[in-house]
Amino acid sequence: MSLLVVGSVAFDDLETPAGRRVNILGGSASYFSLAASRLHPVQVVAVVGEDFGPEQYHVFQDRPIDLDGLVRKPGQSFHWKGEYGQDLGEATTLETHLNVFADFHPDLPQGYRQASCLFLGNIDPTLQLNVVRQMATRPRWIALDTMNFWINGARQALLKVLKEVDILLVNEAEARSLTGERNLLKIYEKVQLLGPRILVVKRGEYGVVLLTPQGHFLAPAFLLKEVVDPTGAGDTFAGGFMGYLAAAPDTDLETLKRAVLMGTVMASFTVEQFGTGGLQSLSDNALHGRLAALHELMHVAAR
Amino acid sequence: MSLLVVGSVAFDDLETPAGRRVNILGGSASYFSLAASRLHPVQVVAVVGEDFGPEQYHVFQDRPIDLDGLVRKPGQSFHWKGEYGQDLGEATTLETHLNVFADFHPDLPQGYRQASCLFLGNIDPTLQLNVVRQMATRPRWIALDTMNFWINGARQALLKVLKEVDILLVNEAEARSLTGERNLLKIYEKVQLLGPRILVVKRGEYGVVLLTPQGHFLAPAFLLKEVVDPTGAGDTFAGGFMGYLAAAPDTDLETLKRAVLMGTVMASFTVEQFGTGGLQSLSDNALHGRLAALHELMHVAAR
Repeated sequence: MSLLVVGSVAFDDLETPAGRRVNILGGSASYFSLAASRLHPVQVVAVVGEDFGPEQYHVFQDRPIDLDGLVRKPGQSFHWKGEYGQDLGEATTLETHLNVFADFHPDLPQGYRQASCLFLGNIDPTLQLNVVRQMATRPRWIALDTMNFWINGARQALLKVLKEVDILLVNEAEARSLTGERNLLKIYEKVQLLGPRILVVKRGEYGVVLLTPQGHFLAPAFLLKEVVDPTGAGDTFAGGFMGYLAAAPDTDLETLKRAVLMGTVMASFTVEQFGTGGLQSLSDNALHGRLAALHELMHVAAR
Repeated sequence: MSLLVVGSVAFDDLETPAGRRVNILGGSASYFSLAASRLHPVQVVAVVGEDFGPEQYHVFQDRPIDLDGLVRKPGQSFHWKGEYGQDLGEATTLETHLNVFADFHPDLPQGYRQASCLFLGNIDPTLQLNVVRQMATRPRWIALDTMNFWINGARQALLKVLKEVDILLVNEAEARSLTGERNLLKIYEKVQLLGPRILVVKRGEYGVVLLTPQGHFLAPAFLLKEVVDPTGAGDTFAGGFMGYLAAAPDTDLETLKRAVLMGTVMASFTVEQFGTGGLQSLSDNALHGRLAALHELMHVAAR
């Protein structure tokens, strides 16, 4: 029983109001697996180039992260360059070099095909579907992230893989372009018709909305004094969320709520440092302390 | 022991994606008092013109709303014309006719000067200070709303009245222009130096943040399927919030949290109809039903 993630492992060049970094570890599968592995073993399917070496492998070492599915190919790794304005909102992409990622065709190792939870990171929906088809048994949870590039540019393929998905995790703008609706309850109605019965809408500093047939949940973001780099916040959230679900015995609304709070807290550590720094230095004490603080921030005593 | 509000009573012409209305009752004191009077008697200080007649007075009838301080002057009432785009965000002001409001000099009836709670609606800060000075006894709570027009155009007068204030209620953009900070925790540090020890930041559909020396609270907005007209949402929130505080025996953090939730629920009814329609038709059952539903939307079971 494992948690499988397919996504990108990359190098990022980042510029935010707090500073700049070049050639740091990034990619959805990196953030996801560093967060999720705090809670449950993770299996990674991704591709890297020859520039991915001991320094990068070291980050994943000594954690329950299985890299058998991380293929190393001749050439350079996926490289992204982006910058953020003062509001630390949506990043502006300055350069995207797909490199070895351009020919990425996920091929799951045999030991990965029985995973109990599957997270389809933000990649070509045709590849996402291909991964679903390779599973030997139907995972308990299949969750999917995507972005406007695929929603607008590969809509039919996306609609096809969405039919296989339990949980759609997107930000508010993506939820709107997918459904053509602005209102969250109307968005959720349309998403359910597309396949996913659960919708998780990431609203950045405004928190997360969880919509399920059993009820909804509005989670705030953690109040932070400094946000250094928002890169990877969504993937970290997904890692904490799916890691919690993979480790939990139940699949009920209460479990999903707690998974949302775990993802929220994990993401709060990611944005406090550049790249994966916040996740790398995260202690169990800090994690549980902040989880308790988040509960406190949203708690109202029973009358 | 009463709750005193000073603000505007006006006529609005509104256009939203859901339709348009002309000459409907509006103004901060109208929304505030209709909401607050569900919880506690309210005394209103405002000015209207000769166009304010039986139809408008009727709206406030049979509610514990004291209109002795609502002065009727020769001329026309304050009239505002505004429209909203598809996102129902900030209104665009098309016309503002101050009319009798241009010479508004609040003069508190003797029976108002011992009020236990005072809400200074969004008017000229010089007038807000003038009202504070007229109080015979220091109210338990003084709360203040303002807007960028005063923050930028009457900053010194605003800073003067803020020294007298316990609770500052503003939206996120206003909190930022007042303090020059973007981060809520840094904003709150600066606000405390200006006088108010409590800050309530209204974030529209993203909820409300309550910042106090005893701790903070992140409240979501209620999930609605239809938003018809956002006009008055902030004033309604203030009414529910202050009405709850005026009626409550305590002044602790838990009381402030509940006041935030009451304001949130009141505001959700306002935005479902044009103008004050949602507050006028609001039943106790609907109010308490939605309050319970909001608690449910933010509830996580104790482990």
